[in-house]
Amino acid sequence: MSVTIVWFLMGTALVFFMQAGFAMVEAGFTRAKNTGNIIMKNLMDFCIGTITFILIGFGLLLGEDFIGLIGKPGFDVFTNYANFDFSNFVFNLMFCATTATIVSGAMAERTKFLSYCVYSAVISALIYPIEAHWIWGGGWLSTLGFHDFAGSCAIHMVGGISALVGAKILGPRIGKFERDDSGKVIKVNAFPGHNLTIGALGVFILWFAWYGFNGAAATSDNQLASIYLTTTVSAAIATFVCMVFTWLKYGKPDVSMCLNASLAGLVAITASCDVTDVVGALIIGSVAGVLVVFGVWLLDHVLYVDDPVGAVAVHCFNGIWGTIAVGLFATTKAPESTINGLFYGGGMKLLSTQLIGLLAVASYTVIMMILVFYIIKKTIGLRVTREEEVLGLDATEHGLASAYADFVSFVPEVMTSSHDNHVIESENHSELEISNTDRVKMTKIDIICKMDKYEALRRALAKIGVKGITVSNIMGGGKGAVRYYRGVAIESQLSPRMKIEVIVSKVPVELVIETARKTLYTGKVGDGKIFVYDVEDVVRVRTGERGYDALQDERDK
Amino acid sequence: MSVTIVWFLMGTALVFFMQAGFAMVEAGFTRAKNTGNIIMKNLMDFCIGTITFILIGFGLLLGEDFIGLIGKPGFDVFTNYANFDFSNFVFNLMFCATTATIVSGAMAERTKFLSYCVYSAVISALIYPIEAHWIWGGGWLSTLGFHDFAGSCAIHMVGGISALVGAKILGPRIGKFERDDSGKVIKVNAFPGHNLTIGALGVFILWFAWYGFNGAAATSDNQLASIYLTTTVSAAIATFVCMVFTWLKYGKPDVSMCLNASLAGLVAITASCDVTDVVGALIIGSVAGVLVVFGVWLLDHVLYVDDPVGAVAVHCFNGIWGTIAVGLFATTKAPESTINGLFYGGGMKLLSTQLIGLLAVASYTVIMMILVFYIIKKTIGLRVTREEEVLGLDATEHGLASAYADFVSFVPEVMTSSHDNHVIESENHSELEISNTDRVKMTKIDIICKMDKYEALRRALAKIGVKGITVSNIMGGGKGAVRYYRGVAIESQLSPRMKIEVIVSKVPVELVIETARKTLYTGKVGDGKIFVYDVEDVVRVRTGERGYDALQDERDK
Amino acid sequence: MSVTIVWFLMGTALVFFMQAGFAMVEAGFTRAKNTGNIIMKNLMDFCIGTITFILIGFGLLLGEDFIGLIGKPGFDVFTNYANFDFSNFVFNLMFCATTATIVSGAMAERTKFLSYCVYSAVISALIYPIEAHWIWGGGWLSTLGFHDFAGSCAIHMVGGISALVGAKILGPRIGKFERDDSGKVIKVNAFPGHNLTIGALGVFILWFAWYGFNGAAATSDNQLASIYLTTTVSAAIATFVCMVFTWLKYGKPDVSMCLNASLAGLVAITASCDVTDVVGALIIGSVAGVLVVFGVWLLDHVLYVDDPVGAVAVHCFNGIWGTIAVGLFATTKAPESTINGLFYGGGMKLLSTQLIGLLAVASYTVIMMILVFYIIKKTIGLRVTREEEVLGLDATEHGLASAYADFVSFVPEVMTSSHDNHVIESENHSELEISNTDRVKMTKIDIICKMDKYEALRRALAKIGVKGITVSNIMGGGKGAVRYYRGVAIESQLSPRMKIEVIVSKVPVELVIETARKTLYTGKVGDGKIFVYDVEDVVRVRTGERGYDALQDERDK
Repeated sequence: MSVTIVWFLMGTALVFFMQAGFAMVEAGFTRAKNTGNIIMKNLMDFCIGTITFILIGFGLLLGEDFIGLIGKPGFDVFTNYANFDFSNFVFNLMFCATTATIVSGAMAERTKFLSYCVYSAVISALIYPIEAHWIWGGGWLSTLGFHDFAGSCAIHMVGGISALVGAKILGPRIGKFERDDSGKVIKVNAFPGHNLTIGALGVFILWFAWYGFNGAAATSDNQLASIYLTTTVSAAIATFVCMVFTWLKYGKPDVSMCLNASLAGLVAITASCDVTDVVGALIIGSVAGVLVVFGVWLLDHVLYVDDPVGAVAVHCFNGIWGTIAVGLFATTKAPESTINGLFYGGGMKLLSTQLIGLLAVASYTVIMMILVFYIIKKTIGLRVTREEEVLGLDATEHGLASAYADFVSFVPEVMTSSHDNHVIESENHSELEISNTDRVKMTKIDIICKMDKYEALRRALAKIGVKGITVSNIMGGGKGAVRYYRGVAIESQLSPRMKIEVIVSKVPVELVIETARKTLYTGKVGDGKIFVYDVEDVVRVRTGERGYDALQDERDK
Repeated sequence: MSVTIVWFLMGTALVFFMQAGFAMVEAGFTRAKNTGNIIMKNLMDFCIGTITFILIGFGLLLGEDFIGLIGKPGFDVFTNYANFDFSNFVFNLMFCATTATIVSGAMAERTKFLSYCVYSAVISALIYPIEAHWIWGGGWLSTLGFHDFAGSCAIHMVGGISALVGAKILGPRIGKFERDDSGKVIKVNAFPGHNLTIGALGVFILWFAWYGFNGAAATSDNQLASIYLTTTVSAAIATFVCMVFTWLKYGKPDVSMCLNASLAGLVAITASCDVTDVVGALIIGSVAGVLVVFGVWLLDHVLYVDDPVGAVAVHCFNGIWGTIAVGLFATTKAPESTINGLFYGGGMKLLSTQLIGLLAVASYTVIMMILVFYIIKKTIGLRVTREEEVLGLDATEHGLASAYADFVSFVPEVMTSSHDNHVIESENHSELEISNTDRVKMTKIDIICKMDKYEALRRALAKIGVKGITVSNIMGGGKGAVRYYRGVAIESQLSPRMKIEVIVSKVPVELVIETARKTLYTGKVGDGKIFVYDVEDVVRVRTGERGYDALQDERDK
Repeated sequence: MSVTIVWFLMGTALVFFMQAGFAMVEAGFTRAKNTGNIIMKNLMDFCIGTITFILIGFGLLLGEDFIGLIGKPGFDVFTNYANFDFSNFVFNLMFCATTATIVSGAMAERTKFLSYCVYSAVISALIYPIEAHWIWGGGWLSTLGFHDFAGSCAIHMVGGISALVGAKILGPRIGKFERDDSGKVIKVNAFPGHNLTIGALGVFILWFAWYGFNGAAATSDNQLASIYLTTTVSAAIATFVCMVFTWLKYGKPDVSMCLNASLAGLVAITASCDVTDVVGALIIGSVAGVLVVFGVWLLDHVLYVDDPVGAVAVHCFNGIWGTIAVGLFATTKAPESTINGLFYGGGMKLLSTQLIGLLAVASYTVIMMILVFYIIKKTIGLRVTREEEVLGLDATEHGLASAYADFVSFVPEVMTSSHDNHVIESENHSELEISNTDRVKMTKIDIICKMDKYEALRRALAKIGVKGITVSNIMGGGKGAVRYYRGVAIESQLSPRMKIEVIVSKVPVELVIETARKTLYTGKVGDGKIFVYDVEDVVRVRTGERGYDALQDERDK
């Protein structure tokens, strides 16, 4: 076996693993009610892409060149399997699927599933293979000397532009931009992702897999090792710069933005990973770390395009930056590199070529994707209904009650069979006689307080003889602090509070109120409230005791 | 270093990573109360398997052949370490552990942990090594020409059959199948998985690792690349076909079934991944995509075997299909392949051999596993008690209060924009007139009880005419059991309880109290309490009915 | 390309992937309110480490040796990129980042983010590179024959000691240790991790990646395969032994402790993975499995050092054990091994060397880290404020409301010590006088509605002057749509609903009812219900106002 081929295939497997990364990032950065849908889309773009890539995409990409524009479609995989170029096929398939999967993030939470399947198929069958043929398949850009080693342009920019076009045509999620009567946006709302841990895992998976993505096509040890170095450095510095930048700009280092920044640094170095050096990587990554914050801000506050996961800022903007960066930072000091960019004495030649390629591919993608999305919009429709969006795509598109069944409804344990009823009915009913006591005044006291006061309150109440309490989580009134999520202020109308319910008869109501006040009092707004209600009766299930007796601690008797 | 060995070991590491995939799939597709237990089982089958495989399994598998049936056990690893075949040992160990881990999914949520450890050890020590010796260790099936490249039969079918036998003997989870008095199943209930995101991640990890699982033993570049191709194509088409099939059959594309289908496609191609071509892979995968849906249906609606994660449908059914498929789709067009199946002009010879091997291995596995499970059942017992199952295996088997300590319930959506208000305000206000009725005594009854009583209570209340109830999760007073987390006692002051709120007017309050008591009564401390309050008024939003009328079931009128 | 280099780089990528494993383990084993912070720290130690390692660390580690103590810092990476040793740089960078990341776990949930960044930078720039130079960079310990193949000492012990020193200086989390008035610890509390599934995934990822961590530097096929074997066996037996041990000690097999034990087994074998055999691995692992339980117990019950994730028990204790174990179990029977430990006839020589190295590196680390942490403590401060800790570091350090936006968490905080009660009781009681107002009719109105109506309802109520509301999630009566899960119909008896509680006095009850009806009305079954109750009294905690006054918005007065 050949090392180069085995590594090439190992890299291929790593590029497949990026599907896991994308699925986790997109799921984690969106809302729980759409999680199943997002997973399904990430799964399906790969599966549908595989089919269309076999049928047409692979030929368009790597078939015999036709006047520099497309490869000749062919069916060698079916007709001449024994001599087929297996490794190039699977490698390019994985890259193709990556392009398609980028789009799903920006269009998440409101795109029709069927329409998603259709445009995802078109990207894998036509959009990607044609431009990738220009760059990698012997087409006119490769002849021109355009350099895009692992796809800042061919994959990320194309995916990112498709995402931008799609998100624009699709429109924002309900509630994202509030407009006044003239249609002017007066408020931008943030929808925080439902699972940052999973989102972060996705980023780590992507970073790990990127060593395969950028490195798979390396042809020498030194080239591969240098690719590792530039890739690592760019991602690391991008994340660091983003941390510092958000810290200065928003007052706190923003977690989810930094996770995006890691990806931005990876995207930006992808084109030049084999031809730049550590200085180039440091600059490329630093710019990426700021560019991603700018991109998110631009979409939210200027373009009013709703991109739930930051796909446009990461892939489109940094794909563009990465493509240009080749023309600036390419250097023959990098192993196997034969080109120099502007800052390494290569003049404007390479930079011009990069800009020509960039504009050509971008124009092509914009035109094609506008066409694709409009045709879909006018035929099967691009967006789910308002009701479906509010209810969530899991329920409406997939009949999935929730991706987190036990967290939503806790209840639906279907555990009592008719057998249980039988047992219960055979109980000795005489035990169940209910004792009657004269009506004694009983009072229910509801105490609403902050969560961190619960333990102190419980102890204080126990000291005055109140032992049976019930506790639940509620959301309480009052404005909380303004927080920023990805640069957007979150105005929280409600804050988490605890509700402690106490029912007393012997213990004086006033004592309970006084005790609760002492314990909860800090003097700041938000100390809580106490509500008092009359109770008509109380029954203890086990003994049948009523009223006063039912309230006494069983262990005290 | 040799490329072949290094790749073989890289593949070995990937096969280990499948343990992560299995753990996540099984955890995600089951209920949160058993998550710690499932993780522990997935961890332990590998660890216990390692020990037994060293002691006996490896010898039985790869030791000197004894009349084609078993390898000669040996202790070379202890006595002659310097000359030991390390790479074959670790590679085969990972495969062995995969077989054992498949079983845990089908038997999840009700198997005793100790019993799990025992049968898992037996599978790794005896069951798997013997049949794998037949196929891969120089035994009679390998002599016969039986072909199973990476284990559709040796691993997945054997694991899947063990899962089926185990799940059958174990019986379904409480509440899965509702039966009438004659024992006939009248209703099949679904228990949705608690974390689809994690389940999906598991599938992506498994798919990624499958390139190592199927590819590790490749001996040439082309063979490896072709294995990548067939593996990818089969999984992709299986998923796609399943999506279309569930869309047609159930009206929506089913997310969790499609995730199973990816695995089904991978299992099905595993035996023939090195000897079939793209057409074979397309057909094998397509069948797998339908077969997995059929398998789940068959177990649920015909066999009444409860397999929480679909392990039987995925591994048993598609393991069988994959083993047969070799006899149909093997072709010398695949690199290094020297065999042809029925559809590629090879006649019945290979197919017959595959069927012989299939039947032999299946019979062997069925007999052995029935024996194993019955012996366990009759000695230490196979299943947890009814109470343990209801409470969850995390708490009862591991003293783990919850795998998700900080979570309780789901959060509100803030999704209504000013646009919605507009719509509402344009409603015809005349419809909104509120009807006045004389004040009738109405009473609110709050019932606090244990979670497992909810369903019985709901039914009992419905019988006496109380239909509109609201249910919430609260934390109720009273000391729970002391639990240990990492060796430290957790003193839980509160336990999870349900609060059922009922408001009645026509139905006598005493009847509700009596009914609730009968249903909840067990005689133990903690049966719950019932609180009674006066209600001033009730309004039904839609009709404007008030008081008594507003309480009546709309469908009864 | 060379197999050795390609494998070396594949291993490097796997070592990077350990960052994902550490992030998941640390996030899963701590509380939900600090998850974003933990992820950010794990991300940043790598990113900051990369920068400092380029600038200074790499030179100190692998630069030209200076009297055995440090390497000569250099800037070849900037000045002579074409001839730079790329592969060694990236490989050592990943190892360096691993050392830094270990510390974050033990100091989780209370360390200032800025301080974390600083000490993390110092570890990557100075602490690690210097001692690693002694061991691997041609320094005095390597000359002496000290053996630490993949870093039990250089990485895990150093990381673990830093963690111990840090956690000690930092002090325990609020509520971890309850003390009486004399300062004696009378109770140790457990804070269960918030997501065991993610923690377990982290462990599986780490185990998988460890094949790269231990194996990357292998130079022959047999050596690599033997490393796989010893690594697997040690981890497996450690986990198994821990299961048995906790089962005996605590009555149940402890899940999270067993997950720690897997890591303990991996850490312990790391130094000797290339020079010991299967027997050595079995003993080393077995000891690790008990040692980790002992370590956790020692910190909790003797040293009173609070280590949320068990980093000290895993990395420090087992790093020490692993370093010593080389001196006991090294054997020339292992491929490429030329050394023998005490139990393999090598006498005390190797053991002495290991002990010398251990003591030297440990002393160095202790002294340096005490210095580092004290300087930080005295300048920027090491620990967040009491309030920040209680509120959680996500909110206070990163402005992140929650890492799990759609989930409500219930954290039974054990945060009130006797000290807190003291503070509260010393409040000026005269402030707490309760004002008495005449009884005014007050009414509680409970509105049950669909979730998507909440925002509209809140606004409508605010318009009529109702501002203080509480909101909770309940399950409401009525059949929902039939859904399918894996082909089985789910009959949902209850659907998620919101309960909005409002208490009014000045605002007429009828106005509230009418407003709610207008807002909620759609004319379809399921629009909701409104319940009206009498309220006896209301108290505002802060002011002591009662009745009518207590209901008025504080900002309106």
